[in-house]
Amino acid sequence: MFHVTRRLCQRRHPNPLSASLAIRYQTTSSYHNTGNTDDKQYSEPKNYSASPRFIFFGAATVLGYAYYRTFGIRKLSADAQFKDLAPPERKDLPIYKRDDVKKHGKGSQRIWVTFQNGVYDVTDFIESHPGGDKILLAAGDAVDPYWQMYAQHKKSEVLEILEEMRIGTLDPNDIKVETKKVDVNDPYANEPVRHPALVVANHKPFNAETPPTLLVDHFRTPNEFFFVRNHLPVPDVDVSKHHLQVEGLGVKRPLNLSVDELKNSFAPVHITSAIQCSGNRRANMNAYKKVQGLMWKETAISNAKWTGVRLRDLLIHSGVDPNDKQIKHVHLEGADKDPTGGQNYGASIPFEKAMSPETIVAYKMNDEDIPRDHGAPLRLIVPGVVGARQVKWLKAIRLSDVESPSHWQQKDYRVFSASVNAGDELKWETVPSIQEYPIQSAFCIPQPGAAVSRSEETIDVAGYAWSGGGRGIIRVEISTDGGKTWQTADIEQDPQQDQEHMWSWTLFKASVKIPEGVDQMELVVKATDRSYNTQPETSAGIWNIRGLLNNAWHKVEVKIKD
Amino acid sequence: MFHVTRRLCQRRHPNPLSASLAIRYQTTSSYHNTGNTDDKQYSEPKNYSASPRFIFFGAATVLGYAYYRTFGIRKLSADAQFKDLAPPERKDLPIYKRDDVKKHGKGSQRIWVTFQNGVYDVTDFIESHPGGDKILLAAGDAVDPYWQMYAQHKKSEVLEILEEMRIGTLDPNDIKVETKKVDVNDPYANEPVRHPALVVANHKPFNAETPPTLLVDHFRTPNEFFFVRNHLPVPDVDVSKHHLQVEGLGVKRPLNLSVDELKNSFAPVHITSAIQCSGNRRANMNAYKKVQGLMWKETAISNAKWTGVRLRDLLIHSGVDPNDKQIKHVHLEGADKDPTGGQNYGASIPFEKAMSPETIVAYKMNDEDIPRDHGAPLRLIVPGVVGARQVKWLKAIRLSDVESPSHWQQKDYRVFSASVNAGDELKWETVPSIQEYPIQSAFCIPQPGAAVSRSEETIDVAGYAWSGGGRGIIRVEISTDGGKTWQTADIEQDPQQDQEHMWSWTLFKASVKIPEGVDQMELVVKATDRSYNTQPETSAGIWNIRGLLNNAWHKVEVKIKD
Repeated sequence: MFHVTRRLCQRRHPNPLSASLAIRYQTTSSYHNTGNTDDKQYSEPKNYSASPRFIFFGAATVLGYAYYRTFGIRKLSADAQFKDLAPPERKDLPIYKRDDVKKHGKGSQRIWVTFQNGVYDVTDFIESHPGGDKILLAAGDAVDPYWQMYAQHKKSEVLEILEEMRIGTLDPNDIKVETKKVDVNDPYANEPVRHPALVVANHKPFNAETPPTLLVDHFRTPNEFFFVRNHLPVPDVDVSKHHLQVEGLGVKRPLNLSVDELKNSFAPVHITSAIQCSGNRRANMNAYKKVQGLMWKETAISNAKWTGVRLRDLLIHSGVDPNDKQIKHVHLEGADKDPTGGQNYGASIPFEKAMSPETIVAYKMNDEDIPRDHGAPLRLIVPGVVGARQVKWLKAIRLSDVESPSHWQQKDYRVFSASVNAGDELKWETVPSIQEYPIQSAFCIPQPGAAVSRSEETIDVAGYAWSGGGRGIIRVEISTDGGKTWQTADIEQDPQQDQEHMWSWTLFKASVKIPEGVDQMELVVKATDRSYNTQPETSAGIWNIRGLLNNAWHKVEVKIKD
Repeated sequence: MFHVTRRLCQRRHPNPLSASLAIRYQTTSSYHNTGNTDDKQYSEPKNYSASPRFIFFGAATVLGYAYYRTFGIRKLSADAQFKDLAPPERKDLPIYKRDDVKKHGKGSQRIWVTFQNGVYDVTDFIESHPGGDKILLAAGDAVDPYWQMYAQHKKSEVLEILEEMRIGTLDPNDIKVETKKVDVNDPYANEPVRHPALVVANHKPFNAETPPTLLVDHFRTPNEFFFVRNHLPVPDVDVSKHHLQVEGLGVKRPLNLSVDELKNSFAPVHITSAIQCSGNRRANMNAYKKVQGLMWKETAISNAKWTGVRLRDLLIHSGVDPNDKQIKHVHLEGADKDPTGGQNYGASIPFEKAMSPETIVAYKMNDEDIPRDHGAPLRLIVPGVVGARQVKWLKAIRLSDVESPSHWQQKDYRVFSASVNAGDELKWETVPSIQEYPIQSAFCIPQPGAAVSRSEETIDVAGYAWSGGGRGIIRVEISTDGGKTWQTADIEQDPQQDQEHMWSWTLFKASVKIPEGVDQMELVVKATDRSYNTQPETSAGIWNIRGLLNNAWHKVEVKIKD
């Protein structure tokens, strides 16, 4: 395997590939927008060329055809020339079953992966993999769905490298379409197929995070990797028949628009906006003191470009007077329905936010039709506000003088005082519903328990920061001494947004000196927003029984090996 | 003196006076507006009848005439019937000079005060004083200016009580008008006379805080007690000749309005809004790690009702298009000028904030003409934004595509990273100017070093909370165990403002149990705003060399006596 590694290393600096993957981060301590965020970036994920270990999953060829054909999700995009890059027939090698490959997953002595019909032992390649241990996400399984997401794999050279690790051929029966057994009594029988990389927190309803190491690869999170937080089964919406109703207080001309009517009647607008679950980082808060809820780690957040029509335009078209003082709230209803016969998902936002130009009824996510998991065909995008109000599968908009009566507006997504403990009565009406999010930041790299060699002298860190209400991130800082001293991280932001209207997240990275004389270090990150709000040091002042809105300093322990 | 104390105690519960001074706080854990804030409250400061020590300075008669006649500030208001309440002639008692009285100030064995021509030894009354040790603010000096601010003193009974403490008569020569010696070479020769209660941090330019115990007495801080932060000498503005210019980018019809024209041409609007100095609580941050700047304690903040015209109306009248994308900033220039021949004070705010309905050019402060120290005749009020942008003595408004070139916009009021230390180059252009304030709260009562008797079982605490951007305070919490457990405080808010447009501050109070088994307690307060932002626990994550925007948890040590 040695020569494979060497060949790859030789290629690494410089070559046309790494040139096209220039760092998009700029080293600056300025608060000005420093990023370079365009559509190209989405199709060509950036990497961290300052740090060799960040390069792969993006140094080879996308040959995703097999995956998408196999799972029948969608047709291959035109530029993926998979046929020319298919693994050669190798009758000299043994045939393996998919189950054989699965025995060589993460944690086993030898790590196997498949690509189309090829079976490969990549154990000795992992350390040389420029994408680092991201390759382990596919351990015991197919790399195809990952390569599909990293277009740089579309190179015959990469297949050549892979073929040198070839140990066998996958049984042809195991490449066929996997048909799901459908239980007609299961309200969750009709869920969409998801990307295998998603880290599932709950299956029914489906809740999953983006793997942290993949999250920071993309300024705009690919749809397949975007975290999923569903409250109910994914509804089976017929796009051609779906209608959006607009009605209620102050509406002079109620609307009932098909998706096409919506698209054709109003000017399209684009906005890149992060969505964060209010339970993001609940597991961190739970470590401080036990809380109730799904144990989200730190990646229940993603960022995407949304295309749609301004809710404001829609409301004015329905005859709503923007200065109508009676209208206080806008109710939103999704097509997802409680299978036990209960209500549809619902929420509301303040009328003023509904009338703000950034709030849109979106029909595209990263330039594609919104996928089923993310609200096909229509999702309300409310930039700067918690995910729970950004209603998916949007079917009705109702104006009112009061908040939505929905369970999720009235009896959830409200943050109690730290004085309310388990077993105490929850007086929901005494606390306000969450709308704008507080300031947040977290590491994605490294992960807790990571180890670094002292001889490397520095460790590369990366993650995200975001604040609600459009308040831009003015700085992200890292500490290795518990907050006594800080190092400013490099940040990447959306150049089309200013610090008062920063709906996108901020990605950060830094190369941090490994402290001497210790065999363990605690990395700490915290961010500051345009209003100079910062994160609290621990959960002591924000702890709440439901574990919502944890934005304490994020801390990650790393072992230092001599 | 005993019978005096007893008489007062007898009167305390119930009497018509205490009835009229009912607590305005409501005990509630709700985030809804709970206060009762009207004009009456301003003229009749509330007190804390649950706590006997909070009652006085407000249980007697205002006899402020002598003070105001003496210092020639203004005419007595019609309802202060001072003549009927003047101390009687007492030829049996000795005559004292003002200097004799001054020897009996705070810290001396016997505490003397004067009221008009009466001299009183109040030493034995202090403990019984329902207003607590507030009486010591006047120790060695006149109570008149304080009584003027506490209208409840307008009772002959109070004068009776006072006369029982009479020890002498003030030399008539010492009641006369004090004429100031004017040094024509001193640019600060023409400063206004200030209320003696103000705690002076710097004389030239004048900077002073409100005494903490007086601050929480008023939901709207009386003009005389409103904290003062001047950058330059107070300009001598002739109101009849003063003009306000509106000019610059996008202005089709430049304006040059007299104060009367401004008042008569636009609809008046009223808004109650807090102003906070960006250096408030710098002394707390300095205690964490040395910073540079004036050592403000925790009361460089006040709250007032402002009356004026919408800046938006003014700009639209000048021909500005509200949707003009070229205009980014609005420059503001004051009439105060650097005496060394430098520039006038200046600042700028974002155009979007200038066009928001809450931003006004004010000409009244608490229903009176704005006093000289606070910007007579015109001050820009920018609710939710730091004090430095709320330009006093406003004379020019200029629209632009860039921020104000003023020193105070470019080279001050910007918060550096904690990594920038004393001696480092300050790269001002790399950090954004402060506009919106982060979330803040602090105790006013008790003060550090206060002592409480264990037998009282509880200690009364009070203070303020506020957040920038109109983000309402949803809760204030107190801890006595370093943040492990919290008690929700009662809060008072402006009932005319909602949680998304809360420009006024929030006052809080709580009765906190004294912990057992310790001879010292640390009280901690922190607040949460509508975006669920909270304060950091210490200054570790917000420390900056200029000591700006300190909003760490406020902590006060209290001794517990057995």
